[in-house]
Amino acid sequence: MSVLRGRKIYSVLAFALVVWLAPAAAQENKSAGAGQHVNPQRLRETLEKLSEFGRKPDGGVTRLGFSEADMAAREYAMGLMRAAGLTVRVDAAGNIFGHREGTEKLPVLLFGSHIDSVLHGGNFDGDVGSMGAIEVIRALNDNHVTTRHPLEVIIWTNEEGNHFGLGTFGSSAASGKFGPEVLARRGDDGLTLADWLRRYGQDPARFAEARIVPGALAGYLELHIEQGGVLDEAHIPIGVVQGIVGIKHWKCAATGFANHAGTTPMNRRQDALAAAARAALAVRDEVRAEPGRQVGTVGYMKIEPGAVNVIPGRVEFPVELRDLDPAKIERIWNRVEKRFAAIGREENVDIHCALDDSDDPASSDPEIQALIRKAAEEAGLATMDLPSGAGQDAQEVAKVAPMGMIFVPSRGGISHSPKEFSTWEDVANGAEVLYRAVLMLDQASARERPAQ
Amino acid sequence: MSVLRGRKIYSVLAFALVVWLAPAAAQENKSAGAGQHVNPQRLRETLEKLSEFGRKPDGGVTRLGFSEADMAAREYAMGLMRAAGLTVRVDAAGNIFGHREGTEKLPVLLFGSHIDSVLHGGNFDGDVGSMGAIEVIRALNDNHVTTRHPLEVIIWTNEEGNHFGLGTFGSSAASGKFGPEVLARRGDDGLTLADWLRRYGQDPARFAEARIVPGALAGYLELHIEQGGVLDEAHIPIGVVQGIVGIKHWKCAATGFANHAGTTPMNRRQDALAAAARAALAVRDEVRAEPGRQVGTVGYMKIEPGAVNVIPGRVEFPVELRDLDPAKIERIWNRVEKRFAAIGREENVDIHCALDDSDDPASSDPEIQALIRKAAEEAGLATMDLPSGAGQDAQEVAKVAPMGMIFVPSRGGISHSPKEFSTWEDVANGAEVLYRAVLMLDQASARERPAQ
Repeated sequence: MSVLRGRKIYSVLAFALVVWLAPAAAQENKSAGAGQHVNPQRLRETLEKLSEFGRKPDGGVTRLGFSEADMAAREYAMGLMRAAGLTVRVDAAGNIFGHREGTEKLPVLLFGSHIDSVLHGGNFDGDVGSMGAIEVIRALNDNHVTTRHPLEVIIWTNEEGNHFGLGTFGSSAASGKFGPEVLARRGDDGLTLADWLRRYGQDPARFAEARIVPGALAGYLELHIEQGGVLDEAHIPIGVVQGIVGIKHWKCAATGFANHAGTTPMNRRQDALAAAARAALAVRDEVRAEPGRQVGTVGYMKIEPGAVNVIPGRVEFPVELRDLDPAKIERIWNRVEKRFAAIGREENVDIHCALDDSDDPASSDPEIQALIRKAAEEAGLATMDLPSGAGQDAQEVAKVAPMGMIFVPSRGGISHSPKEFSTWEDVANGAEVLYRAVLMLDQASARERPAQ
Repeated sequence: MSVLRGRKIYSVLAFALVVWLAPAAAQENKSAGAGQHVNPQRLRETLEKLSEFGRKPDGGVTRLGFSEADMAAREYAMGLMRAAGLTVRVDAAGNIFGHREGTEKLPVLLFGSHIDSVLHGGNFDGDVGSMGAIEVIRALNDNHVTTRHPLEVIIWTNEEGNHFGLGTFGSSAASGKFGPEVLARRGDDGLTLADWLRRYGQDPARFAEARIVPGALAGYLELHIEQGGVLDEAHIPIGVVQGIVGIKHWKCAATGFANHAGTTPMNRRQDALAAAARAALAVRDEVRAEPGRQVGTVGYMKIEPGAVNVIPGRVEFPVELRDLDPAKIERIWNRVEKRFAAIGREENVDIHCALDDSDDPASSDPEIQALIRKAAEEAGLATMDLPSGAGQDAQEVAKVAPMGMIFVPSRGGISHSPKEFSTWEDVANGAEVLYRAVLMLDQASARERPAQ
């Protein structure tokens, strides 16, 4: 598909042909009918078994990347891959690839997700796309379907960024985001990233080998829960992801003066918490000040000294802004900065922010979006186009391959919580669309890209 | 002086006489002239030596009550008392009394302060009044002054409330504030209060014996730094404390719903931090809404889950209000509660508060206030009447004896900080006024209260 990008007119024509031909092509290769190809019960059982790794009494999981629970879950996943006939390989960043041969010498079609969770996380984020990918392979096997491209199921390492604050770690290693200096980064447990990779059985010296060369993949697909409430509210079973929002994240500090809460008159205070409170509300005001789906959040405040009877002298707080349009993020931030400066003057508190992290928006490949829409339609499932407000491994893969994502509804829009839930029907629908999209992309890509 | 309370007309007349006669009476007993009786250099050396216990690299101290540094400082103070000829006794709450005989069989005149500090505290809070009291004894010795009342220097245990969150611990034991159940209270290090008293060499079974029976003391005086900036700003060397403000302290919790900061639209959030930020600002608004010296503070927020990419689901925060007038505290709190309810409705966040702690205001004895004013005047020092915004051991002693406090300026109003500072001249002035006030009270009380 990456060739498409250079030769637009050709490719759009070719693509239209493919979308029209693909279902027929897939039909040739499989024994099942036009109904459901994946096995919902088998997929559910696999997901329920996966949920045992790191399970908490509240029914959720804590399966942090690089933890013992994660290691055990990875073993489980590799076992499933092997049982499905895949050849398992773990790259230098710990990413797990399960390989299935194609009938032609073509670049790999990659699809999968992650199985690590946040602290006190749920049983669907990442899991659905990972187990769904393995289910697609099993369904292909059941139906004796071969593909032109080799297929690979991927389970990315440490998507949630545990220990090192490096979200989408495995896919970022694959996209070449990191230099070798990242290996010396020390996590919150005192171990370096290199130490952790060794625990994963990897040789840190070969870390750069995890990089996927742009163009080496025919395409990337990821099934994932929405993590927001848009699909659930609209009663739409399948989301076609337009792209993954850009995220900018600033670290801010309000510095006033800590003093005795009983003896310091109200008009002589330099209350860092009052200033930070006004700052947090200003962020919200400015995000709300224009229409659109942009979001802005102040997720915590670290308050010093933090005693009931001492006026806070210093407050650290982050500001996070997300949108598909980087210009909108910039515009909002400029307004926020002006507000912070005014608050600082009025409160006699210094407010200073520094950009801490920045992820550019990543667009889904328009042809893959169309193909997912078509796949859902053929499966009798309504779709809605929407952005991913959450960061995704797919945003990294988008740097090296045409990418598309399939969302299924999250009940109540809840995620990163033990209450995270998608119905088994929603999960099976997502896997079915992934199954069909893989086969369509197999046909589409084969027509676009000559054998190598 | 406590008898005075019942017989007002008599006593005011008698008191006027005393104030007029007292300087002359004091003169009869001492060899020094009308100038300075205390020895500023000796007082400074004692304070500087005390500052070595728990000293930190920034020049401040961490000498938490019940800590090793505190234990060592107590030994030092007891040594100073003995060297000044005092008979040392430690009561069942760990309070240190240094006794000096009087010439008549009269109730004790008590004066002193505390020597424990807050975490990262300074070298003046408590220390000035404790070492100042010992200096008064030494000056009386130097000048061969005897008193009618026995004098006792007091160093109260754990005024800052380390380990157990029980501020003015020793003086509260003396005022009978605690029942025996307090002994089972477990501190932040896992030890009970009874365990700590044993470390102090006390028998917890005798804890109730620390109680001072109302009327048993002729009076109580405490020299202390202001901890606020009023005297410093007005360039007034001596503050006559009108009373110690009442403190009410509520624990509040804002409960919203923690959700993904990227996928949850702005209009579907139940952001507990946004609600708490508005609540903190509402507290300030309502405190400022009427004239006066009242203060209100939100000293911290505990935010869960507290991640950059998660909308805060729950925020715990305290609200503290202080004023000499309890009705004003009540009035402000009623307005704050209404504001919280409105914020909760608007933010779809539950805000709930519960009264956590309450200290009634404590008035200084009006006659002792007049006597301190007179003592300062005779020493050629200007005075200002002002409340203590900080809690004090004196507020507990006020429950069992007529009480008065002498404040000296805190530079810049800074306290509970390594930067806490009072000039050595201010410190000596305070000790001199204490010296004179002790002698005046000795005469005043002797006239008011027959020998027992």
